[in-house]
Amino acid sequence: VWAVVVAGGRGARYGRPKQFDLLAGRPVVEWAVAGARTVADGVVLVLPPDRAGMAAEGPAGRYGADAVVDGGVSRSASVRHGLAAVPGDAGVVVVHDAARPFASEELFRSVLEALLDGAAVGGAICAVPVTDTLKRVVPDGTRVTGTVDRTCLVAVQTPQAFRADVLRRAHASAGDATDDAALVEALGAEVRVVPGEARNVKVTTPADLAYLEHLLASER
Amino acid sequence: VWAVVVAGGRGARYGRPKQFDLLAGRPVVEWAVAGARTVADGVVLVLPPDRAGMAAEGPAGRYGADAVVDGGVSRSASVRHGLAAVPGDAGVVVVHDAARPFASEELFRSVLEALLDGAAVGGAICAVPVTDTLKRVVPDGTRVTGTVDRTCLVAVQTPQAFRADVLRRAHASAGDATDDAALVEALGAEVRVVPGEARNVKVTTPADLAYLEHLLASER
Repeated sequence: VWAVVVAGGRGARYGRPKQFDLLAGRPVVEWAVAGARTVADGVVLVLPPDRAGMAAEGPAGRYGADAVVDGGVSRSASVRHGLAAVPGDAGVVVVHDAARPFASEELFRSVLEALLDGAAVGGAICAVPVTDTLKRVVPDGTRVTGTVDRTCLVAVQTPQAFRADVLRRAHASAGDATDDAALVEALGAEVRVVPGEARNVKVTTPADLAYLEHLLASER
Repeated sequence: VWAVVVAGGRGARYGRPKQFDLLAGRPVVEWAVAGARTVADGVVLVLPPDRAGMAAEGPAGRYGADAVVDGGVSRSASVRHGLAAVPGDAGVVVVHDAARPFASEELFRSVLEALLDGAAVGGAICAVPVTDTLKRVVPDGTRVTGTVDRTCLVAVQTPQAFRADVLRRAHASAGDATDDAALVEALGAEVRVVPGEARNVKVTTPADLAYLEHLLASER
């Protein structure tokens, strides 16, 4: 089992990527790598090019990962860069967002178990119920065309686990999607779902960090 | 213009409804009523039955509203209770969640302007882009059937503004929906959409409160 932890985002909205900010004294990305390591034999970390350069200067720039590679022009391209650095004999690849520091060891295990449940299963993801009311709107966004039935919809998190050969095949076409499972689905492979976690928040704003600091404090 | 502020939720998950917790020293619901008052001539507040009883004891139990009524068995039923207390000569009714303390005056005005843009418009809502990856799953939730195209989807917030006669007609059938616009859409009336606000968060957990306290502190 190898993990690819993706920290390609440049944090355009907030001036700098929030996944390098400190959370209880440790960079968010280091939490995410440590999470992945609870199930992975090795971790490849995908960093924005300027950060990847710093990794060569010492272990602090690697955030606990075994290997660091440059990100690509899109999230999917970044995952492909990471996947290229995963040893060829790895049977399973777990993809995880560097901005999700609080995915628990249980969650990583649960996703892996779902993947290994049957030979036909190509991938396994975690997700939570959709709590927002969702509407379909006209292309310019100014008018409602209908309310979405959210009964059978879920909001996707990471980690996501895949059979390595299936994930490599899914990425061979150099497609772009907001998650890896979508590329695997496009192959026709079965993707399982396990319950995600409320605390598995994606850190994108300073207030998200404040939220997680509060969660940590309240759990202590 | 009258507003119905809905605080019917019992906070089942967290032991008590978070909309009565203090945010910068004021109950969340009081922030929400003050927000609605920036555009409304009167505010009806819908409270859980035990809280509504306290309103009779003094102004503190009314959180700044002109009238307080008991909530119903569902969100839609609570809105109907509130609507029944809105004067018959009100031309516009704004519905707002008591758990959204930070909807700005600009947002209330923007929703009202969209409503009053044309005689055919029955309602106006605010909404933000969907940032999560969404999947369709089988009824038991264990397997993905597809990734949702989120291009034309938005996540709905409140305030929502309606022509009073249209909203009363929409609620006449005693229907249930996760927002009022859905009932108005069911009449075939046009519903406009304006951009919502990132800070217009719905408070449902202690960490949401921590998030908003942080937003306030960072803006000062």
